[in-house]
Amino acid sequence: MSQQLKIVGKRLPKVDAWERVSGNAQYASDIFLPGMLYARILRSPHPHAKVKSIDVEKAKALPGVKAIITFKDAPPYRWHQDMPLLTDTSRYEGDNIAVVAAKDDDTAREAIDLIKVEYEVLPFVLDPEEAMKPSAVKIHPKGNIIGGKPFVLKRGDMEKGFQEADIVYEHNYRTSLLQHVTSEPKACVAHWEGGKLTIWDSTAFTFGVQTGLAKALKIPMSKVRVICNFMGGSFGDKSTAERYNILASLLAKKTGLPVKMEYDRDENFLTSHHRYPTVWTLKYGVKKDGTLTAIYARMIADLGGYGHFSGALECSGTMKSVYRCPNLHFEGYNVYTNKPEGGHMRCVGHPQAQFPQEAHMDAIAEKLGMDPVDFRLKNYARKEDGDQDTKLPYASIGLEECLKQGAEAFGWKTRWQKPGSSSGPIKRGLGMAIHACRHGAMTVPSSGMVRVNSDGTVNVLTGTSDIGGGQKGQLAIIVAEELGVPLETVFVTNADTDVTTDTGGSSGSRQTMTGGTGARLAAVDAKKQILAIAAAELKTEKEKLEIRNGSVYPIGSDKGTPLNVILQKAPATIVGRGIGRLPKGVVMFTFAAHFIEVEVDTRSGKVRVVKLVAAHDVGRAINLMALENQIEGGAIQGMGYGLLEDQILDAGTGICLNPNMVDYKLFTIKDVPEIQSIVVESIDPYGPFGAKGVGEPPYSVPAPAIANAVYNAIGVRFDRIPINNRMVLEGLKGAKA
Amino acid sequence: MSQQLKIVGKRLPKVDAWERVSGNAQYASDIFLPGMLYARILRSPHPHAKVKSIDVEKAKALPGVKAIITFKDAPPYRWHQDMPLLTDTSRYEGDNIAVVAAKDDDTAREAIDLIKVEYEVLPFVLDPEEAMKPSAVKIHPKGNIIGGKPFVLKRGDMEKGFQEADIVYEHNYRTSLLQHVTSEPKACVAHWEGGKLTIWDSTAFTFGVQTGLAKALKIPMSKVRVICNFMGGSFGDKSTAERYNILASLLAKKTGLPVKMEYDRDENFLTSHHRYPTVWTLKYGVKKDGTLTAIYARMIADLGGYGHFSGALECSGTMKSVYRCPNLHFEGYNVYTNKPEGGHMRCVGHPQAQFPQEAHMDAIAEKLGMDPVDFRLKNYARKEDGDQDTKLPYASIGLEECLKQGAEAFGWKTRWQKPGSSSGPIKRGLGMAIHACRHGAMTVPSSGMVRVNSDGTVNVLTGTSDIGGGQKGQLAIIVAEELGVPLETVFVTNADTDVTTDTGGSSGSRQTMTGGTGARLAAVDAKKQILAIAAAELKTEKEKLEIRNGSVYPIGSDKGTPLNVILQKAPATIVGRGIGRLPKGVVMFTFAAHFIEVEVDTRSGKVRVVKLVAAHDVGRAINLMALENQIEGGAIQGMGYGLLEDQILDAGTGICLNPNMVDYKLFTIKDVPEIQSIVVESIDPYGPFGAKGVGEPPYSVPAPAIANAVYNAIGVRFDRIPINNRMVLEGLKGAKA
Repeated sequence: MSQQLKIVGKRLPKVDAWERVSGNAQYASDIFLPGMLYARILRSPHPHAKVKSIDVEKAKALPGVKAIITFKDAPPYRWHQDMPLLTDTSRYEGDNIAVVAAKDDDTAREAIDLIKVEYEVLPFVLDPEEAMKPSAVKIHPKGNIIGGKPFVLKRGDMEKGFQEADIVYEHNYRTSLLQHVTSEPKACVAHWEGGKLTIWDSTAFTFGVQTGLAKALKIPMSKVRVICNFMGGSFGDKSTAERYNILASLLAKKTGLPVKMEYDRDENFLTSHHRYPTVWTLKYGVKKDGTLTAIYARMIADLGGYGHFSGALECSGTMKSVYRCPNLHFEGYNVYTNKPEGGHMRCVGHPQAQFPQEAHMDAIAEKLGMDPVDFRLKNYARKEDGDQDTKLPYASIGLEECLKQGAEAFGWKTRWQKPGSSSGPIKRGLGMAIHACRHGAMTVPSSGMVRVNSDGTVNVLTGTSDIGGGQKGQLAIIVAEELGVPLETVFVTNADTDVTTDTGGSSGSRQTMTGGTGARLAAVDAKKQILAIAAAELKTEKEKLEIRNGSVYPIGSDKGTPLNVILQKAPATIVGRGIGRLPKGVVMFTFAAHFIEVEVDTRSGKVRVVKLVAAHDVGRAINLMALENQIEGGAIQGMGYGLLEDQILDAGTGICLNPNMVDYKLFTIKDVPEIQSIVVESIDPYGPFGAKGVGEPPYSVPAPAIANAVYNAIGVRFDRIPINNRMVLEGLKGAKA
Repeated sequence: MSQQLKIVGKRLPKVDAWERVSGNAQYASDIFLPGMLYARILRSPHPHAKVKSIDVEKAKALPGVKAIITFKDAPPYRWHQDMPLLTDTSRYEGDNIAVVAAKDDDTAREAIDLIKVEYEVLPFVLDPEEAMKPSAVKIHPKGNIIGGKPFVLKRGDMEKGFQEADIVYEHNYRTSLLQHVTSEPKACVAHWEGGKLTIWDSTAFTFGVQTGLAKALKIPMSKVRVICNFMGGSFGDKSTAERYNILASLLAKKTGLPVKMEYDRDENFLTSHHRYPTVWTLKYGVKKDGTLTAIYARMIADLGGYGHFSGALECSGTMKSVYRCPNLHFEGYNVYTNKPEGGHMRCVGHPQAQFPQEAHMDAIAEKLGMDPVDFRLKNYARKEDGDQDTKLPYASIGLEECLKQGAEAFGWKTRWQKPGSSSGPIKRGLGMAIHACRHGAMTVPSSGMVRVNSDGTVNVLTGTSDIGGGQKGQLAIIVAEELGVPLETVFVTNADTDVTTDTGGSSGSRQTMTGGTGARLAAVDAKKQILAIAAAELKTEKEKLEIRNGSVYPIGSDKGTPLNVILQKAPATIVGRGIGRLPKGVVMFTFAAHFIEVEVDTRSGKVRVVKLVAAHDVGRAINLMALENQIEGGAIQGMGYGLLEDQILDAGTGICLNPNMVDYKLFTIKDVPEIQSIVVESIDPYGPFGAKGVGEPPYSVPAPAIANAVYNAIGVRFDRIPINNRMVLEGLKGAKA
């Protein structure tokens, strides 16, 4: 990377900041079409129940009601294998029974109230360990252990590893049920023009919605258009076609009119997929010198009423990757309960696995009498270790720099003390944790297009949804840098399956690397075409020309010709296209180390985070401001995960007690401590200008770091999160007893 | 063209027929955005007047009025050089004085009424010959002859040509003022998101609107997005950025809210551009054997209050091209009057020139005692003549076939009689005319993109607006044929400057050849990529494979692999791109011959067309049904041009007397005769599968053929159109006297 970077790495406002803050941005709910209907879903009030009878006659007779579909007449299509579009058996509170389209939202709500349903309430199970027992009520016919057996991963000889260990430490952990709480709940508008469906959706993955709808509705992909203009947050939600997309499309087809479906906040809390809770047993073996010899992990992923992916598989990544260890046994169960469906939330499993792993490592470090930082430095998987099962090295790794620079900035070496050494009623404690994950890497498909207009300005066509993380800006900067044009002349078109190319969803911290590589290569391709035209015009060879600041120059010369002059000779709009290909022989990972200082008020039990230093290996900063936003935003949400967020289902009824933003506690700006972001640039050889993604990593690390800091403050170790006031008070009581 | 065509040439319904007839298609006026305002223009009631004072205070005070712009605070930008956005000097009835945006349309109209304007009414001039006199009132400072002198074209030695002639015939002709009367009047919605303008417009040329708006608003083209979903007719109107686009954009910018501007029908009649009236003197020399020796044409193009193009230049094309003649003098004046602005209408000048030319030729044939068909056959410019000034031959020509097949189908040789030989009060007459024009040829830019989805279905991305002529279907057929996929899996995305590439406007009969070539080449490019993937998969060479009916086959084999299987191996969505390049060394022309039978009721003066045979050289029929639709639609409109359409301005006041669809007479379905379309396939070597365009040619030919048929029926020759009942009665009276 010898070239001089002009735009990459600066501190720049987001390209769509004005639209977002001014209310000018168009979201799915801002779409209004002539004759548009409003849809509402009739939801089961029971976590587990069978519909004995349903009567829609009164609802049908209500003026303004245009269509009703119930589980009786819904297509038999199964979503995620086990999930009917509409069901006669509710498997979680809020499950879909019927759907109504009416001339306005009030009428749709009234119609829902007029549908008479008799339920046979069934026994329910919320605890995944209970659900695994043979005696438990079966939520699906084949039983509650999905696939009937655990997902298992083995490396080396675990027993031998434990034999070699000087210390073997075993402990249990739990994580809780969380919702994404995107600022915008789910919303879409479905509209058929003849045989062609257009759907405006709040989605991180337009192409996923397209593929899903084409499959569900049995129509060609060319006749499904999914547009996401602006959208208000994803965090892993809204990242595939969902039942509400299909239902809105079916209602629009049935009525011949556009149909809007918007979720209320409580619907989002009850029926969006969730961060699935987990239950863990960890047993690690370690030598006196701190060398890990064996990792044993048994876990349960509580996927709720429907299981569309393997939480166990996803959680195994952390266990198998972060630390170098020759002997490993991972065993994970995916289990049905009568909770909301489990799924991705700012990562697929790392946050659930990171908490027990890093709490466990902290406890072992203490047993060894080692500084927790030194213990990580000793054991983290090196570049040459890479993927310890496939033996492929990392493409780039800056974890040691994260640890060292983070510790330095935090003053770890000078300030860290033994646990419980703070005096007075408010106790200070320091904690840390590290992170390594395959997110932020390149995935397939990685593609992009750029169009260079005759005035030299540029449109970037990419399937990348900007979910609020600044994805558009990343692509604009990458293209402007590569093409040599001013950033303000580059415009990134919103995701739209009819006209852009697939870059995968804006999930998996994917778009800087994946969308960015496609867009960069498209810019390279466009540049080549432009320089060929310029060479003919300027009577030289294209290798002797370059583009700088919107003009073509002979390399080294100050006499440039503006692109709008050169492009008068173009036979048509310049279209550049690019396809990124996965590097072979390496694995791509991102890394982080967080250092946290807390105050624990031993009278109220309140834990306050005072300071966070978050060091991240990002490969290369594309936009420093957006990058810090991502780190800070992720860390703030991650602190909420550690201290506050918990969707509570009543044990007696299975009903959610806090499906709203008052009772479900989120980190607010008043909770946010001083955050110092440290950017480590490992310059990945495959990322655009060396960059890797950073969307998810900042989220996973604060929770275990907080738990470790709380232990450091009060000498009580918590093995479940969130660590709320009551737990702290009870913990302190237990410690005294 | 040895390949077997599977789809091209069939008789197929339009791909968007259902949307259009069901009301499901989304037009610009169907766009509703949150907070959207409605704009109205305050228009001068005088054809020529100066604003002495304007008072907007009352209008401003009206609740719901959000913005007012008058000529005083409009940007000084000149549209079409001589046209201010808003003016203090009205140059035609309905000229723009001020514009209002309000919360709803009623409020906007009320605000317009509340603006108080005092006018100084100026003398006006409607007759272009009057306007040319030095004493005439000056409409623009430099006088009424635009550019101060005529456009002149000379070939050979005109005087020598007349000397060589045995007969020299001179006569004067006139054509009238027409409006396009598109089924949808002008409409747009302008919306700014930050620095980016999106405008949904009813336009045949999204890229033209984009370029115009970027220029007018001084912003990069990448920040102007023009979308045309569906639109209801163009005929040359709506084919560039217009003042209402700029005004809507300025109001939206000023208010920070979306702004819709829709014209009422009378506004469209008064202020859209028009088919400009023309005044002609023709003088042709001819030998006894029928050989043309000299063509002299002097004409005036009455461009109304503003002149944004040269009607004289455009009219010269017919005079210089259709007939082989070594000696030519063309002299044309572009003149200002206080009429609506002149412009394109289903061609730029041919319809105005075709009428006098073909009436003149008919009169000369009679003087020579020659059959009119034979006279044309003798004189039409042959393939080797091509452009007689540049000496480039035609790429393809089927005019002789049109004449021969048309005459045969019509029974010309057996049925044609000398003029006036019909008896009884209702007299029958036969007439004919021919056509040759450069429309339907390829132009720059010719470009296209196709995207092949992973299920093997295809999206075509093209800047082509479907103005109702079936342009989308043409492209879908061309791409399906070239790619070897079923037509129903191909979807053409609507014109959208952010995501499609420029193919010029849907004017000039351009899109089959120009958009079609770009799309075809894009399909060729996509096919190449797919076959390369297939060859790797099937372990063969790509040259040995072909795509048929959505599957890849070894050539000659029956064992195919479906595209959706092959494409699982594609690294990303397949993007094909194509750029058509103009052929060198030839000119491209389209040709036609029409044969018409009329009945003239000598008691009422009514002319009824009984039968029309329209023979067209189309190169190759892409969709036979759409092609016949175009021929029939064009011919019907052309018959209205010959018999009915006339926008009448009152001589005493300059005010339009018929700005509505009741008083402005159009051909209706009750007027339509039996029409037989004859498709001549000259297989153009440069068109997609040999095709040329056919949008405009059918329009030009009926009017002179009708005039010639009327003469044939009653022995009275009319030298102006439309030929209305009163003219016929007066003509018959004159003939008797």
